[in-house]
Amino acid sequence: MRRRLFVLPLSLALAGVAHADEGMWMPSQLPDIARQLKAAGFKGQARDLAELAKPPMNAVVKVGGASGAFVSKDGLVLTNHHVAFGVIQYNSKPGRDLIQDGYIAADRAGELPANPDYRVLVTTGFDRITDRILAGTAGKQGREYYDAVDVATKAAVAECERDAGYRCSVANMYYGTDFYLVRQLELRDVRLVYAPPNDIGNYGGEVDNFVWPRHAGDFTLLRAYVGKDGKPADYSPDNVPYVPPAHLQVSTRNVKEGDYAMLAGYPGVTFRHRMASEFANQIDWQLPSRVAVFQRMIDVIEGTAAKDEAARVSYANQVRGLKNTLKRAQGELDGLRRSDAVRVRRDDETAMFAWLEKQPDAATTKTDIAAAQTVLDAGVAMRERDQLLGLIQSQTQLLRAALTVQRLARERGKPDAQRESGYQQRDEVLITGQLKQVQRRFAPDVEKALLTELVTQYQALPAAQHVAEFDAVFGTTPAQLKQKLDAMYAGTKLGDEAQRLSAMQADGAALASSSDTMLKAAATLLPAVLRLDEESKASAGELLRLRPAYMRALIAYRHSQGRAVYPDANSTLRVSYGRISAMDPRDGVHYTPLTTVQGIVEKHTGQEPFNAPKPLLDAIAKGDFGSTAEPSLKTQTVDFLTNLDTTGGNSGSPVLDAQGKLIGLNFDSNWEAVSASWMFDPRYKRAIHVDMRYLRWLLAKVYPAPHLLKEMNLPAE
Amino acid sequence: MRRRLFVLPLSLALAGVAHADEGMWMPSQLPDIARQLKAAGFKGQARDLAELAKPPMNAVVKVGGASGAFVSKDGLVLTNHHVAFGVIQYNSKPGRDLIQDGYIAADRAGELPANPDYRVLVTTGFDRITDRILAGTAGKQGREYYDAVDVATKAAVAECERDAGYRCSVANMYYGTDFYLVRQLELRDVRLVYAPPNDIGNYGGEVDNFVWPRHAGDFTLLRAYVGKDGKPADYSPDNVPYVPPAHLQVSTRNVKEGDYAMLAGYPGVTFRHRMASEFANQIDWQLPSRVAVFQRMIDVIEGTAAKDEAARVSYANQVRGLKNTLKRAQGELDGLRRSDAVRVRRDDETAMFAWLEKQPDAATTKTDIAAAQTVLDAGVAMRERDQLLGLIQSQTQLLRAALTVQRLARERGKPDAQRESGYQQRDEVLITGQLKQVQRRFAPDVEKALLTELVTQYQALPAAQHVAEFDAVFGTTPAQLKQKLDAMYAGTKLGDEAQRLSAMQADGAALASSSDTMLKAAATLLPAVLRLDEESKASAGELLRLRPAYMRALIAYRHSQGRAVYPDANSTLRVSYGRISAMDPRDGVHYTPLTTVQGIVEKHTGQEPFNAPKPLLDAIAKGDFGSTAEPSLKTQTVDFLTNLDTTGGNSGSPVLDAQGKLIGLNFDSNWEAVSASWMFDPRYKRAIHVDMRYLRWLLAKVYPAPHLLKEMNLPAE
Repeated sequence: MRRRLFVLPLSLALAGVAHADEGMWMPSQLPDIARQLKAAGFKGQARDLAELAKPPMNAVVKVGGASGAFVSKDGLVLTNHHVAFGVIQYNSKPGRDLIQDGYIAADRAGELPANPDYRVLVTTGFDRITDRILAGTAGKQGREYYDAVDVATKAAVAECERDAGYRCSVANMYYGTDFYLVRQLELRDVRLVYAPPNDIGNYGGEVDNFVWPRHAGDFTLLRAYVGKDGKPADYSPDNVPYVPPAHLQVSTRNVKEGDYAMLAGYPGVTFRHRMASEFANQIDWQLPSRVAVFQRMIDVIEGTAAKDEAARVSYANQVRGLKNTLKRAQGELDGLRRSDAVRVRRDDETAMFAWLEKQPDAATTKTDIAAAQTVLDAGVAMRERDQLLGLIQSQTQLLRAALTVQRLARERGKPDAQRESGYQQRDEVLITGQLKQVQRRFAPDVEKALLTELVTQYQALPAAQHVAEFDAVFGTTPAQLKQKLDAMYAGTKLGDEAQRLSAMQADGAALASSSDTMLKAAATLLPAVLRLDEESKASAGELLRLRPAYMRALIAYRHSQGRAVYPDANSTLRVSYGRISAMDPRDGVHYTPLTTVQGIVEKHTGQEPFNAPKPLLDAIAKGDFGSTAEPSLKTQTVDFLTNLDTTGGNSGSPVLDAQGKLIGLNFDSNWEAVSASWMFDPRYKRAIHVDMRYLRWLLAKVYPAPHLLKEMNLPAE
Repeated sequence: MRRRLFVLPLSLALAGVAHADEGMWMPSQLPDIARQLKAAGFKGQARDLAELAKPPMNAVVKVGGASGAFVSKDGLVLTNHHVAFGVIQYNSKPGRDLIQDGYIAADRAGELPANPDYRVLVTTGFDRITDRILAGTAGKQGREYYDAVDVATKAAVAECERDAGYRCSVANMYYGTDFYLVRQLELRDVRLVYAPPNDIGNYGGEVDNFVWPRHAGDFTLLRAYVGKDGKPADYSPDNVPYVPPAHLQVSTRNVKEGDYAMLAGYPGVTFRHRMASEFANQIDWQLPSRVAVFQRMIDVIEGTAAKDEAARVSYANQVRGLKNTLKRAQGELDGLRRSDAVRVRRDDETAMFAWLEKQPDAATTKTDIAAAQTVLDAGVAMRERDQLLGLIQSQTQLLRAALTVQRLARERGKPDAQRESGYQQRDEVLITGQLKQVQRRFAPDVEKALLTELVTQYQALPAAQHVAEFDAVFGTTPAQLKQKLDAMYAGTKLGDEAQRLSAMQADGAALASSSDTMLKAAATLLPAVLRLDEESKASAGELLRLRPAYMRALIAYRHSQGRAVYPDANSTLRVSYGRISAMDPRDGVHYTPLTTVQGIVEKHTGQEPFNAPKPLLDAIAKGDFGSTAEPSLKTQTVDFLTNLDTTGGNSGSPVLDAQGKLIGLNFDSNWEAVSASWMFDPRYKRAIHVDMRYLRWLLAKVYPAPHLLKEMNLPAE
């Protein structure tokens, strides 16, 4: 990606105001924007969409951490191939490669149980409990405020989960302004019904990831089962299909550019209502600095491992992860600069403050906002340190293992319930696994080189950003650093798996008397790590207390303009509406909103990730598309593009037409839209969906499953 | 580029027949296709286009080895910035960087003389002299046939050039079927009048090379001067502008998708009428094998030079060249496979042979074609050897220098006129330069590694492809090769510049007695090199004699279908017609045929090659486009796309509208079209032109030259 420093006035103007199609709305908000929905082409009643217990919302589920929907009265669930990938993998073994071959259960008995931790969650309750959550916060600040919210949250969740078969959580809306208790029926017996071969489900693989035009059939059908009593149950051959309160009907109509579309699902996290200073920090410092330091880390690892084949293999996964983060950060940065996001958000905030001046409660609001800004400023003052110390802990293997061992020993001193999340009894299996993995992911020279890079950057920071314990362990000059690191890695036995596992079992006293240099270094660092963690929670508490003033001002300001405000995404059920949309990614280039099977053939190389299965190529060559062909194109469509507002977590979201019929399955967004987590730019924000007609064609003609078409009330061809 | 092995039936069908828009027609052929021209939208008379001495053809010129046109009555010549680049560079010096700054001559006195070898050629004669050229070939074959044609050609040229101020050449049409005497007025005083900054003329540089959408203002204005007597003359301040017999008028109309367009220029070389077996050899062997061996050479050079900074620098240019060739070969291969060219050409030829069977003279024709095929088969039998021995001579530095020195000594033994072209007296300056350059382009370890790679491949060839002299010099086993190369590079002093230059001056006897191992190796190889050269000329002579049978059959077969046949390109004046055309490069992607200044801003990074000059960015931001804006887009266009049939050499070709007005200046084609030298695929073949409205806007508003607009009879803004 090239950096683009200039943007056109036209693009600025568009980005400057929230677009009609922007928004990840809570279903309960939809009646407020009924007029806009109607104007966009929705033929139903907005108030029907607001009811979680009514169709279509009660057909939308959370599945495998992402989204999905019931598509038959017998609990058939449609989600993405990549969302169900773990289930497919779990059922594959030598001689039965369901990833490569796909899978079609011939009948109910042939449906294969998912991994036991795989879940389908049906949201049944969504109640505002703001007063209850904030009841104990009066007069509190910082860490105390944070804890008061935490205690109330845990109590509400525990009470709600007394009802067996439900999982509950508290969702924080508008950054601490409102809290909702989310109640979800937890279906624990999920089975694999139909998966296309990976070369269809993930056609294009990493190369096509984030790419339009796209040609993947990224879908899989699962089925949720319950006990004979109709209640959630662990897998049992005696279980029966879950009968959902409603399901979506796959459309048999054609779709075309401009058609109304809407989508429901569980978007993960967005930052659109962050303060202008946070936008500036993200775009002017955080992302460029992440790009720079990740590039340095990649260079250091690759440079050090260049002549050491074993080290290259050990670090391949970490390097791949660093490169992905780097690429994404660069994409986000490019997009935010292209949208001139710093200026646009600042101008918007300035206008809000100007409006605020004229409001009666301006003074208190401004005091709170100023206090929030002070907390943010304090974070900015330490951002270089926080970034580097974070990477020192997360990107090392041996040092991280030593820190984990020390912290676990410390947490073990508390009752289990009070142990820090991640260090409780139930986490010890995971920690054991991590400590074992070190062996395959570690080379001392590479880790020393990486630490040399990161700590040298840290040593160059001004004194105010220094932390005594880190200075003690690593020294304050490059020469000291070299000497300390040499000693640290020469005098440790943690490179040996048995030593790590035995250290994990050791108690605090034993660890304290250990002469292992790495364990001693971790012991020195741990108080600093805990102290910084504590400071970060105190800041989080203060922001939880103070941000609502900002959010309330923003919401009121938007209302004064006749506009509603959706909360930033937080993995709760949301609805977005818009239309099937082409895209002009750059001057002279136009993306059509529907792709066809011709593109599969064009991309096919016979090599992964463009190795279309022969039955698919044969069926395309045969050209027998029946009722699933798009008449205007005289061929079979594959995927389509909308301007719906999505983010990570929306994978598997059902895409509905104006009548509420299922026309698509969301599975990705375009590369130009990675910056949409911060800013929705209508020129560039698109979502990518499997066309349900492609699914129907595959089930009818390519990898036939006539019984499933029948179950979904669809024509046989 | 990914290899694409599959193509769709649709694409096959389109590629299978010559498209209406295919064709690089000799102007004299245009009356034969007058009906098609009219149907395409041409408003003039086809017969007017056939006359080289009449407008518009007498306004089209050959300039700097490519194409151009007169655009004023005072000899103003429009061509590409990249075609005039040498002239701009020649006039630049420290403190006056015309490449970076561009240049506007304030008046005639300010027009800067081009490098003395720069030429503008006006074609004034084009006469069929087939009988004269072939008169001496009766009963001859092979090398004798070749020489007979060569002697007759040289005589015709010499006679024609007796007329001072003219340059003449003989053009071989339809592979030896017809010969034309081309007579060109040679204008030797050419001056630089107007050049935009390189960041406009070459905006996008190598990154955008072959790319659509494009945003370059790739044009420059020159002026041709003659002596006061109106005759061609070397530069003199007393010269006067040449008054061309006609010039083109730049259009002031708008252009849009679908508009008729035609282009005249000097396309270099195409292979469209080659035999089916040659298509198969090119696509199934030549290109893949070139890709493979060039990739190996790159790997070997980069691998050997990896730890040697100096060697890396020395070979940077050679590696760049190898990579360019590799990229182009891969692009050509991808395109020809996409168009299924082997099958399409084979089916076409099969149909021709079926038709031929029914013709009266089938027997003789088939005999000749079979004989031609035998010559081609003999070449195929030796193709691996010819490729490797060619690369051994062309891709080495020291060995090549030794071969040059030995050959020069040998040629010096003949009268100058009989010396092989490239080894005549006038070439010795160039050879001296090459021998000097070796110093900066050579590292013994790299050259040995490269030779090890190439000769090892050669050693693995079957005995029939072996050449005794090469076996003697390099041995026949890898072990011998290593020993021979070590000795060859240890025992030579040619790495020293003075030694090379003194060897160049040595006579045959001195060289024969030299103990320098490299010179001795070259002395052993030279007879083989000369023998292979001789064999190649004999084959060329045979093909010159036999191919006309194939071409006549093809032409007659096409005529029987009501179709005319243009000759393959050979740097003579040709005309192509078609229209302004969008392009769908792949499923889901549509390229619009007009780009706008918005794309300049989008691509701008502030770094080369996307560093748009500030005056241009300011003018775009100002949005003052006047009469040059495209009304439908409400902004200024930059470049446009047509489906005109072009190849290398067409750079600078004027693009005319239906009325013969100048609407564009050809400067590139798209990447998908690199395979068009072998096959015209209407889906992918496009040509890229500067929109004359962009030129007018730059001259009116950005880098103003009102006097030139006035001279071209164009509005001031």
